[in-house]
Amino acid sequence: MNPSPYTLYYSPGAASLVVHWVLLELDLPHALALVDTKAGAQKRPDYLVLNPNGVVPTLVIDGKPQYEAAALIAYLAEAHPERGLAPLPGDPRRADFLQWMFNLANMVQPLFRQWWYPHEPAGEAQAETVLAHVRPRIEAQWDRIDAHLAANGPYLLGDAASVADFHLVMLMRWSRSMPKPATEWPNLAALAAKLKARPSFAALYAREGLTEWA
Amino acid sequence: MNPSPYTLYYSPGAASLVVHWVLLELDLPHALALVDTKAGAQKRPDYLVLNPNGVVPTLVIDGKPQYEAAALIAYLAEAHPERGLAPLPGDPRRADFLQWMFNLANMVQPLFRQWWYPHEPAGEAQAETVLAHVRPRIEAQWDRIDAHLAANGPYLLGDAASVADFHLVMLMRWSRSMPKPATEWPNLAALAAKLKARPSFAALYAREGLTEWA
Ligand SMILES: N[C@@H](CCC(=O)N[C@@H](CS)C(=O)NCC(=O)O)C(=O)O
Ligand SMILES: N[C@@H](CCC(=O)N[C@@H](CS)C(=O)NCC(=O)O)C(=O)O
Repeated sequence: MNPSPYTLYYSPGAASLVVHWVLLELDLPHALALVDTKAGAQKRPDYLVLNPNGVVPTLVIDGKPQYEAAALIAYLAEAHPERGLAPLPGDPRRADFLQWMFNLANMVQPLFRQWWYPHEPAGEAQAETVLAHVRPRIEAQWDRIDAHLAANGPYLLGDAASVADFHLVMLMRWSRSMPKPATEWPNLAALAAKLKARPSFAALYAREGLTEWA
Repeated sequence: MNPSPYTLYYSPGAASLVVHWVLLELDLPHALALVDTKAGAQKRPDYLVLNPNGVVPTLVIDGKPQYEAAALIAYLAEAHPERGLAPLPGDPRRADFLQWMFNLANMVQPLFRQWWYPHEPAGEAQAETVLAHVRPRIEAQWDRIDAHLAANGPYLLGDAASVADFHLVMLMRWSRSMPKPATEWPNLAALAAKLKARPSFAALYAREGLTEWA
Protein backbone atom coordinates (compact mmCIF):
# COMPACT_ATOMS: atom_id res chain seq x y z
CA MET A 1 0.00 0.00 0.00
CA ASN A 2 1.30 3.45 -0.90
CA PRO A 3 1.47 5.98 1.90
CA SER A 4 -0.78 8.98 1.29
CA PRO A 5 1.05 11.42 -1.02
CA TYR A 6 -0.15 14.46 0.97
CA THR A 7 0.26 15.44 4.62
CA LEU A 8 -1.30 18.74 5.69
CA TYR A 9 0.03 20.59 8.73
CA TYR A 10 -2.91 22.64 9.91
CA SER A 11 -4.60 24.52 12.70
CA PRO A 12 -8.44 24.69 12.76
CA GLY A 13 -9.76 27.77 10.97
CA ALA A 14 -6.29 29.10 10.02
CA ALA A 15 -4.92 29.71 6.49
CA SER A 16 -4.59 25.92 6.24
CA LEU A 17 -8.41 25.74 6.04
CA VAL A 18 -8.57 26.43 2.31
CA VAL A 19 -5.95 23.75 1.54
CA HIS A 20 -7.85 21.23 3.65
CA TRP A 21 -11.09 22.22 1.93
CA VAL A 22 -9.61 21.78 -1.57
CA LEU A 23 -8.12 18.38 -0.63
CA LEU A 24 -11.62 17.29 0.46
CA GLU A 25 -13.34 18.88 -2.57
CA LEU A 26 -10.97 17.04 -4.92
CA ASP A 27 -11.29 13.79 -2.92
CA LEU A 28 -7.53 13.45 -2.52
CA PRO A 29 -6.35 11.00 0.16
CA HIS A 30 -4.30 12.89 2.73
CA ALA A 31 -2.99 12.72 6.28
CA LEU A 32 -3.51 15.57 8.78
CA ALA A 33 -0.97 16.82 11.33
CA LEU A 34 -2.32 19.26 13.92
CA VAL A 35 -0.01 22.19 14.75
CA ASP A 36 -0.77 23.61 18.20
CA THR A 37 -0.43 27.29 17.27
CA LYS A 38 -1.77 28.41 20.68
CA ALA A 39 1.23 26.68 22.26
CA GLY A 40 3.56 28.18 19.62
CA ALA A 41 4.36 24.84 17.96
CA GLN A 42 4.74 26.62 14.59
CA LYS A 43 7.90 28.35 15.89
CA ARG A 44 9.64 25.19 17.16
CA PRO A 45 12.79 23.99 15.36
CA ASP A 46 11.20 20.77 14.09
CA TYR A 47 8.39 22.73 12.40
CA LEU A 48 10.68 25.48 11.08
CA VAL A 49 12.52 22.81 9.09
CA LEU A 50 9.25 22.21 7.23
CA ASN A 51 8.20 25.86 7.06
CA PRO A 52 10.87 28.52 7.74
CA ASN A 53 8.14 31.18 8.06
CA GLY A 54 6.74 29.46 11.15
CA VAL A 55 3.15 29.56 9.91
CA VAL A 56 0.48 27.09 8.82
CA PRO A 57 -0.18 25.59 6.34
CA THR A 58 2.59 23.32 5.18
CA LEU A 59 1.68 20.59 2.71
CA VAL A 60 4.11 17.71 2.33
CA ILE A 61 3.81 16.53 -1.27
CA ASP A 62 5.50 13.19 -1.96
CA GLY A 63 7.90 13.79 0.92
CA LYS A 64 8.72 17.42 0.14
CA PRO A 65 7.33 20.22 2.33
CA GLN A 66 5.77 23.18 0.47
CA TYR A 67 4.16 26.35 1.78
CA GLU A 68 1.88 29.28 0.94
CA ALA A 69 -1.83 28.48 1.04
CA ALA A 70 -2.61 30.11 -2.31
CA ALA A 71 0.26 28.29 -4.04
CA LEU A 72 -0.89 24.97 -2.62
CA ILE A 73 -4.49 25.28 -3.81
CA ALA A 74 -3.32 26.44 -7.26
CA TYR A 75 -0.99 23.43 -7.39
CA LEU A 76 -3.69 20.94 -6.38
CA ALA A 77 -6.22 22.40 -8.84
CA GLU A 78 -3.69 22.38 -11.70
CA ALA A 79 -2.74 18.79 -10.92
CA HIS A 80 -6.39 17.77 -11.40
CA PRO A 81 -7.50 19.85 -14.39
CA GLU A 82 -10.41 17.48 -15.10
CA ARG A 83 -12.09 18.80 -11.94
CA GLY A 84 -12.22 22.30 -13.42
CA LEU A 85 -11.05 24.29 -10.38
CA ALA A 86 -8.29 26.13 -12.30
CA PRO A 87 -8.18 27.12 -15.96
CA LEU A 88 -4.79 25.97 -17.26
CA PRO A 89 -2.30 28.05 -19.29
CA GLY A 90 -3.83 28.59 -22.74
CA ASP A 91 -7.39 28.84 -21.41
CA PRO A 92 -8.91 32.28 -22.15
CA ARG A 93 -9.71 32.66 -18.42
CA ARG A 94 -6.08 32.09 -17.37
CA ALA A 95 -5.14 35.79 -16.96
CA ASP A 96 -8.22 36.37 -14.79
CA PHE A 97 -7.46 33.30 -12.70
CA LEU A 98 -3.92 34.47 -11.97
CA GLN A 99 -5.12 38.03 -11.33
CA TRP A 100 -7.61 36.93 -8.68
CA MET A 101 -5.30 34.41 -7.03
CA PHE A 102 -2.56 37.02 -6.64
CA ASN A 103 -4.97 39.82 -5.80
CA LEU A 104 -6.39 37.89 -2.84
CA ALA A 105 -2.90 36.83 -1.72
CA ASN A 106 -1.26 40.24 -2.14
CA MET A 107 -3.94 42.83 -1.38
CA VAL A 108 -6.60 41.11 0.78
CA GLN A 109 -4.96 38.39 2.90
CA PRO A 110 -2.22 40.76 4.27
CA LEU A 111 -4.95 43.09 5.60
CA PHE A 112 -6.29 40.17 7.62
CA ARG A 113 -2.79 39.50 8.93
CA GLN A 114 -3.05 43.07 10.33
CA TRP A 115 -6.55 42.40 11.63
CA TRP A 116 -5.48 39.24 13.51
CA TYR A 117 -1.99 40.44 14.50
CA PRO A 118 -2.54 44.19 15.01
CA HIS A 119 0.63 44.55 17.10
CA GLU A 120 2.86 43.62 14.15
CA PRO A 121 3.05 46.90 12.18
CA ALA A 122 3.78 49.23 15.11
CA GLY A 123 3.84 47.36 18.44
CA GLU A 124 1.29 46.49 21.15
CA ALA A 125 0.63 50.13 22.05
CA GLN A 126 -0.73 50.78 18.54
CA ALA A 127 -2.87 47.65 18.16
CA GLU A 128 -6.19 49.51 18.53
CA THR A 129 -5.07 52.19 16.07
CA VAL A 130 -4.11 49.53 13.53
CA LEU A 131 -7.52 47.86 13.90
CA ALA A 132 -9.28 51.19 13.31
CA HIS A 133 -7.18 51.78 10.18
CA VAL A 134 -7.44 48.32 8.70
CA ARG A 135 -11.22 48.02 9.02
CA PRO A 136 -12.15 50.51 6.25
CA ARG A 137 -9.42 49.10 4.05
CA ILE A 138 -10.89 45.59 4.33
CA GLU A 139 -14.37 47.00 3.65
CA ALA A 140 -13.03 48.76 0.53
CA GLN A 141 -11.84 45.36 -0.70
CA TRP A 142 -15.34 43.91 -0.27
CA ASP A 143 -16.77 46.91 -2.17
CA ARG A 144 -14.41 46.24 -5.05
CA ILE A 145 -14.93 42.48 -5.20
CA ASP A 146 -18.70 42.74 -4.77
CA ALA A 147 -18.86 45.19 -7.69
CA HIS A 148 -16.82 42.77 -9.81
CA LEU A 149 -19.20 39.91 -8.95
CA ALA A 150 -22.27 42.06 -9.69
CA ALA A 151 -20.95 42.71 -13.20
CA ASN A 152 -19.15 39.42 -13.92
CA GLY A 153 -20.28 36.81 -11.37
CA PRO A 154 -21.65 34.78 -9.78
CA TYR A 155 -18.06 33.48 -9.32
CA LEU A 156 -14.82 35.44 -9.65
CA LEU A 157 -14.23 33.94 -13.11
CA GLY A 158 -17.88 34.07 -14.15
CA ASP A 159 -20.01 30.94 -14.51
CA ALA A 160 -17.83 28.37 -12.79
CA ALA A 161 -16.12 28.16 -9.40
CA SER A 162 -12.34 27.99 -9.14
CA VAL A 163 -9.99 27.69 -6.18
CA ALA A 164 -9.86 31.51 -6.15
CA ASP A 165 -13.46 31.41 -4.88
CA PHE A 166 -12.53 28.95 -2.15
CA HIS A 167 -9.78 31.32 -1.05
CA LEU A 168 -12.19 34.26 -1.11
CA VAL A 169 -14.69 32.40 1.08
CA MET A 170 -11.97 31.65 3.64
CA LEU A 171 -11.08 35.34 3.78
CA MET A 172 -14.78 36.23 4.09
CA ARG A 173 -15.01 33.81 7.01
CA TRP A 174 -12.20 35.69 8.76
CA SER A 175 -14.37 38.83 8.71
CA ARG A 176 -17.21 37.13 10.60
CA SER A 177 -16.68 39.06 13.87
CA MET A 178 -15.96 42.39 12.23
CA PRO A 179 -18.48 45.23 12.63
CA LYS A 180 -19.49 44.72 9.01
CA PRO A 181 -18.76 41.15 7.92
CA ALA A 182 -18.29 40.36 4.23
CA THR A 183 -21.68 38.66 4.06
CA GLU A 184 -23.31 42.11 4.25
CA TRP A 185 -22.32 42.51 0.59
CA PRO A 186 -25.02 40.71 -1.44
CA ASN A 187 -22.92 39.24 -4.23
CA LEU A 188 -20.26 38.06 -1.80
CA ALA A 189 -22.98 36.51 0.38
CA ALA A 190 -24.44 34.68 -2.62
CA LEU A 191 -21.04 33.31 -3.64
CA ALA A 192 -20.29 32.10 -0.09
CA ALA A 193 -23.71 30.45 0.17
CA LYS A 194 -23.06 28.47 -3.01
CA LEU A 195 -19.64 27.24 -1.88
CA LYS A 196 -20.83 26.46 1.66
CA ALA A 197 -23.57 24.25 0.18
CA ARG A 198 -20.94 21.85 -1.20
CA PRO A 199 -20.59 18.58 0.77
CA SER A 200 -16.86 19.30 1.14
CA PHE A 201 -17.67 22.27 3.40
CA ALA A 202 -19.60 20.13 5.89
CA ALA A 203 -16.81 17.55 5.80
CA LEU A 204 -14.24 20.29 6.46
CA TYR A 205 -16.17 21.61 9.45
CA ALA A 206 -16.50 18.11 10.89
CA ARG A 207 -12.79 17.35 10.42
CA GLU A 208 -11.58 20.66 11.89
CA GLY A 209 -14.23 20.71 14.65
CA LEU A 210 -15.52 24.12 13.57
CA THR A 211 -18.93 25.52 14.43
CA GLU A 212 -18.79 29.32 13.87
CA TRP A 213 -20.03 30.63 10.49
CA ALA A 214 -21.47 27.16 9.62
CA MET B 1 -0.65 45.95 -39.29
CA ASN B 2 -1.86 44.60 -35.95
CA PRO B 3 -1.79 46.98 -33.01
CA SER B 4 0.52 45.82 -30.23
CA PRO B 5 -1.30 43.20 -28.11
CA TYR B 6 0.09 44.64 -24.84
CA THR B 7 -0.10 48.11 -23.30
CA LEU B 8 1.62 48.59 -19.94
CA TYR B 9 0.50 51.36 -17.59
CA TYR B 10 3.57 52.08 -15.52
CA SER B 11 5.47 54.48 -13.32
CA PRO B 12 9.30 54.35 -13.32
CA GLY B 13 10.65 52.05 -10.61
CA ALA B 14 7.21 51.05 -9.27
CA ALA B 15 5.70 47.53 -9.16
CA SER B 16 5.22 47.88 -12.92
CA LEU B 17 9.00 47.55 -13.31
CA VAL B 18 9.01 43.76 -13.20
CA VAL B 19 6.28 43.52 -15.84
CA HIS B 20 8.17 45.92 -18.10
CA TRP B 21 11.37 43.93 -17.55
CA VAL B 22 9.70 40.61 -18.44
CA LEU B 23 8.13 42.14 -21.59
CA LEU B 24 11.63 43.23 -22.65
CA GLU B 25 13.27 39.94 -21.63
CA LEU B 26 10.71 37.99 -23.70
CA ASP B 27 11.01 40.47 -26.60
CA LEU B 28 7.27 41.06 -26.71
CA PRO B 29 6.11 44.13 -28.68
CA HIS B 30 4.27 46.46 -26.32
CA ALA B 31 3.11 50.04 -25.88
CA LEU B 32 3.85 52.04 -22.72
CA ALA B 33 1.49 54.46 -20.97
CA LEU B 34 3.04 56.57 -18.23
CA VAL B 35 0.90 57.04 -15.09
CA ASP B 36 1.87 60.19 -13.20
CA THR B 37 1.62 58.73 -9.70
CA LYS B 38 3.15 61.86 -8.12
CA ALA B 39 0.16 63.80 -9.46
CA GLY B 40 -2.23 61.06 -8.28
CA ALA B 41 -3.23 59.97 -11.79
CA GLN B 42 -3.68 56.39 -10.53
CA LYS B 43 -6.72 57.50 -8.47
CA ARG B 44 -8.52 59.32 -11.32
CA PRO B 45 -11.80 57.88 -12.64
CA ASP B 46 -10.40 57.04 -16.08
CA TYR B 47 -7.59 54.96 -14.54
CA LEU B 48 -9.83 53.32 -11.90
CA VAL B 49 -11.86 51.85 -14.78
CA LEU B 50 -8.71 49.97 -15.80
CA ASN B 51 -7.52 49.20 -12.27
CA PRO B 52 -10.05 49.56 -9.43
CA ASN B 53 -7.21 49.36 -6.87
CA GLY B 54 -5.74 52.61 -8.16
CA VAL B 55 -2.21 51.24 -8.42
CA VAL B 56 0.31 50.43 -11.14
CA PRO B 57 0.82 48.21 -13.05
CA THR B 58 -2.10 47.52 -15.33
CA LEU B 59 -1.40 45.48 -18.45
CA VAL B 60 -3.97 45.65 -21.23
CA ILE B 61 -3.89 42.25 -22.97
CA ASP B 62 -5.71 42.16 -26.31
CA GLY B 63 -7.97 45.00 -25.17
CA LYS B 64 -8.69 43.70 -21.65
CA PRO B 65 -7.09 45.39 -18.61
CA GLN B 66 -5.51 43.02 -16.05
CA TYR B 67 -3.72 43.77 -12.80
CA GLU B 68 -1.35 42.38 -10.13
CA ALA B 69 2.32 42.46 -11.08
CA ALA B 70 3.00 38.86 -10.00
CA ALA B 71 0.00 37.55 -11.94
CA LEU B 72 1.07 39.43 -15.06
CA ILE B 73 4.62 38.06 -15.10
CA ALA B 74 3.35 34.52 -14.43
CA TYR B 75 0.90 34.96 -17.30
CA LEU B 76 3.55 36.23 -19.73
CA ALA B 77 6.00 33.47 -18.80
CA GLU B 78 3.36 30.75 -19.13
CA ALA B 79 2.29 32.12 -22.51
CA HIS B 80 5.88 31.66 -23.76
CA PRO B 81 6.95 28.34 -22.23
CA GLU B 82 9.70 27.90 -24.82
CA ARG B 83 11.57 30.77 -23.11
CA GLY B 84 11.77 28.73 -19.89
CA LEU B 85 10.83 31.48 -17.40
CA ALA B 86 8.06 29.40 -15.75
CA PRO B 87 7.84 25.63 -15.33
CA LEU B 88 4.33 24.66 -16.50
CA PRO B 89 1.84 22.43 -14.65
CA GLY B 90 3.22 18.89 -14.73
CA ASP B 91 6.85 20.02 -14.43
CA PRO B 92 8.48 18.69 -11.22
CA ARG B 93 9.45 22.29 -10.30
CA ARG B 94 5.86 23.57 -10.54
CA ALA B 95 5.08 23.41 -6.78
CA ASP B 96 8.27 25.36 -6.01
CA PHE B 97 7.51 27.93 -8.69
CA LEU B 98 4.04 28.59 -7.26
CA GLN B 99 5.41 28.64 -3.71
CA TRP B 100 7.96 31.32 -4.49
CA MET B 101 5.64 33.43 -6.62
CA PHE B 102 3.02 33.51 -3.86
CA ASN B 103 5.57 33.81 -1.08
CA LEU B 104 7.05 36.98 -2.60
CA ALA B 105 3.58 38.39 -3.31
CA ASN B 106 2.05 37.50 0.07
CA MET B 107 4.87 37.76 2.62
CA VAL B 108 7.55 40.04 1.13
CA GLN B 109 5.89 42.62 -1.15
CA PRO B 110 3.33 43.70 1.53
CA LEU B 111 6.21 44.55 3.90
CA PHE B 112 7.51 46.94 1.26
CA ARG B 113 4.04 48.50 0.98
CA GLN B 114 4.53 49.32 4.71
CA TRP B 115 8.06 50.56 4.07
CA TRP B 116 6.95 52.96 1.30
CA TYR B 117 3.55 53.87 2.79
CA PRO B 118 4.29 53.78 6.56
CA HIS B 119 1.22 55.90 7.37
CA GLU B 120 -1.19 53.22 6.11
CA PRO B 121 -1.33 50.76 9.04
CA ALA B 122 -1.82 53.32 11.83
CA GLY B 123 -1.81 56.92 10.52
CA GLU B 124 0.83 59.63 9.95
CA ALA B 125 1.68 59.90 13.65
CA GLN B 126 2.88 56.28 13.69
CA ALA B 127 4.89 56.33 10.45
CA GLU B 128 8.29 56.27 12.19
CA THR B 129 7.15 53.45 14.50
CA VAL B 130 5.99 51.41 11.52
CA LEU B 131 9.34 51.89 9.78
CA ALA B 132 11.18 50.72 12.89
CA HIS B 133 8.97 47.63 13.09
CA VAL B 134 9.02 46.69 9.43
CA ARG B 135 12.80 46.91 9.01
CA PRO B 136 13.70 43.75 11.01
CA ARG B 137 10.82 41.91 9.39
CA ILE B 138 12.17 42.68 5.90
CA GLU B 139 15.67 41.66 7.03
CA ALA B 140 14.26 38.36 8.34
CA GLN B 141 12.88 37.71 4.86
CA TRP B 142 16.34 38.23 3.33
CA ASP B 143 17.79 35.83 5.93
CA ARG B 144 15.27 33.18 4.94
CA ILE B 145 15.64 33.60 1.18
CA ASP B 146 19.44 33.83 1.32
CA ALA B 147 19.56 30.56 3.29
CA HIS B 148 17.33 28.94 0.67
CA LEU B 149 19.64 30.13 -2.12
CA ALA B 150 22.74 28.95 -0.26
CA ALA B 151 21.30 25.43 -0.11
CA ASN B 152 19.33 25.30 -3.37
CA GLY B 153 20.49 28.19 -5.61
CA PRO B 154 21.84 30.01 -7.43
CA TYR B 155 18.23 30.81 -8.49
CA LEU B 156 15.05 30.31 -6.45
CA LEU B 157 14.25 27.14 -8.44
CA GLY B 158 17.85 25.96 -8.63
CA ASP B 159 19.83 26.00 -11.86
CA ALA B 160 17.64 28.19 -14.05
CA ALA B 161 16.09 31.64 -13.66
CA SER B 162 12.31 32.06 -13.61
CA VAL B 163 10.10 35.13 -13.34
CA ALA B 164 10.13 34.57 -9.56
CA ASP B 165 13.78 35.70 -9.62
CA PHE B 166 12.87 38.82 -11.60
CA HIS B 167 10.26 39.64 -8.96
CA LEU B 168 12.78 39.01 -6.18
CA VAL B 169 15.31 41.38 -7.78
CA MET B 170 12.67 44.13 -8.02
CA LEU B 171 11.94 43.72 -4.30
CA MET B 172 15.68 43.75 -3.55
CA ARG B 173 15.95 47.00 -5.50
CA TRP B 174 13.29 48.53 -3.25
CA SER B 175 15.59 47.92 -0.26
CA ARG B 176 18.46 49.94 -1.78
CA SER B 177 18.12 52.89 0.65
CA MET B 178 17.46 50.78 3.72
CA PRO B 179 20.10 50.65 6.47
CA LYS B 180 20.94 47.10 5.37
CA PRO B 181 20.01 46.60 1.70
CA ALA B 182 19.35 43.11 0.37
CA THR B 183 22.67 43.08 -1.49
CA GLU B 184 24.43 42.66 1.88
CA TRP B 185 23.30 39.02 1.78
CA PRO B 186 25.82 37.19 -0.45
CA ASN B 187 23.54 34.75 -2.23
CA LEU B 188 20.96 37.44 -2.90
CA ALA B 189 23.71 39.72 -4.22
CA ALA B 190 24.95 36.99 -6.56
CA LEU B 191 21.46 36.33 -7.90
CA ALA B 192 20.83 40.05 -8.52
CA ALA B 193 24.19 40.43 -10.27
CA LYS B 194 23.31 37.62 -12.67
CA LEU B 195 19.90 39.07 -13.56
CA LYS B 196 21.22 42.63 -13.84
CA ALA B 197 23.81 41.41 -16.37
CA ARG B 198 21.03 40.52 -18.84
CA PRO B 199 20.64 43.00 -21.73
CA SER B 200 16.96 43.38 -20.80
CA PHE B 201 17.99 45.12 -17.57
CA ALA B 202 19.96 47.83 -19.37
CA ALA B 203 17.06 48.26 -21.81
CA LEU B 204 14.64 48.59 -18.89
CA TYR B 205 16.76 51.26 -17.20
CA ALA B 206 17.02 53.21 -20.45
CA ARG B 207 13.27 53.01 -21.11
CA GLU B 208 12.26 54.00 -17.56
CA GLY B 209 15.02 56.60 -17.21
CA LEU B 210 16.39 54.94 -14.07
CA THR B 211 19.88 55.46 -12.70
CA GLU B 212 19.87 54.31 -9.04
CA TRP B 213 21.01 50.72 -8.34
CA ALA B 214 22.26 50.37 -11.95
N1 LIG C 1 1.53 33.36 3.63
C1 LIG C 1 1.08 32.31 4.51
C2 LIG C 1 0.50 32.93 5.75
C3 LIG C 1 -0.07 31.93 6.70
C4 LIG C 1 -0.41 32.53 8.06
O1 LIG C 1 -0.31 33.76 8.30
N2 LIG C 1 -0.84 31.63 8.97
C5 LIG C 1 -1.20 32.00 10.30
C6 LIG C 1 -2.55 31.44 10.70
S1 LIG C 1 -3.85 32.06 9.67
C7 LIG C 1 -0.19 31.43 11.28
O2 LIG C 1 0.29 30.33 11.13
N3 LIG C 1 0.11 32.20 12.31
C8 LIG C 1 0.97 31.82 13.36
C9 LIG C 1 2.12 32.76 13.51
O3 LIG C 1 2.27 33.70 12.72
O4 LIG C 1 2.90 32.54 14.45
C10 LIG C 1 0.06 31.45 3.77
O5 LIG C 1 -0.83 32.02 3.12
O6 LIG C 1 0.19 30.22 3.82
N1 LIG D 1 -0.74 44.39 -5.71
C1 LIG D 1 -0.27 45.39 -6.63
C2 LIG D 1 0.38 46.51 -5.85
C3 LIG D 1 0.94 47.58 -6.71
C4 LIG D 1 1.38 48.83 -5.94
O1 LIG D 1 1.33 48.86 -4.71
N2 LIG D 1 1.81 49.83 -6.72
C5 LIG D 1 2.25 51.08 -6.15
C6 LIG D 1 3.57 51.50 -6.71
S1 LIG D 1 4.86 50.34 -6.30
C7 LIG D 1 1.26 52.18 -6.51
O2 LIG D 1 0.73 52.20 -7.61
N3 LIG D 1 1.03 53.08 -5.57
C8 LIG D 1 0.20 54.22 -5.78
C9 LIG D 1 -0.91 54.27 -4.76
O3 LIG D 1 -1.06 53.33 -3.93
O4 LIG D 1 -1.65 55.25 -4.82
C10 LIG D 1 0.67 44.77 -7.63
O5 LIG D 1 1.54 44.00 -7.21
O6 LIG D 1 0.49 45.00 -8.83
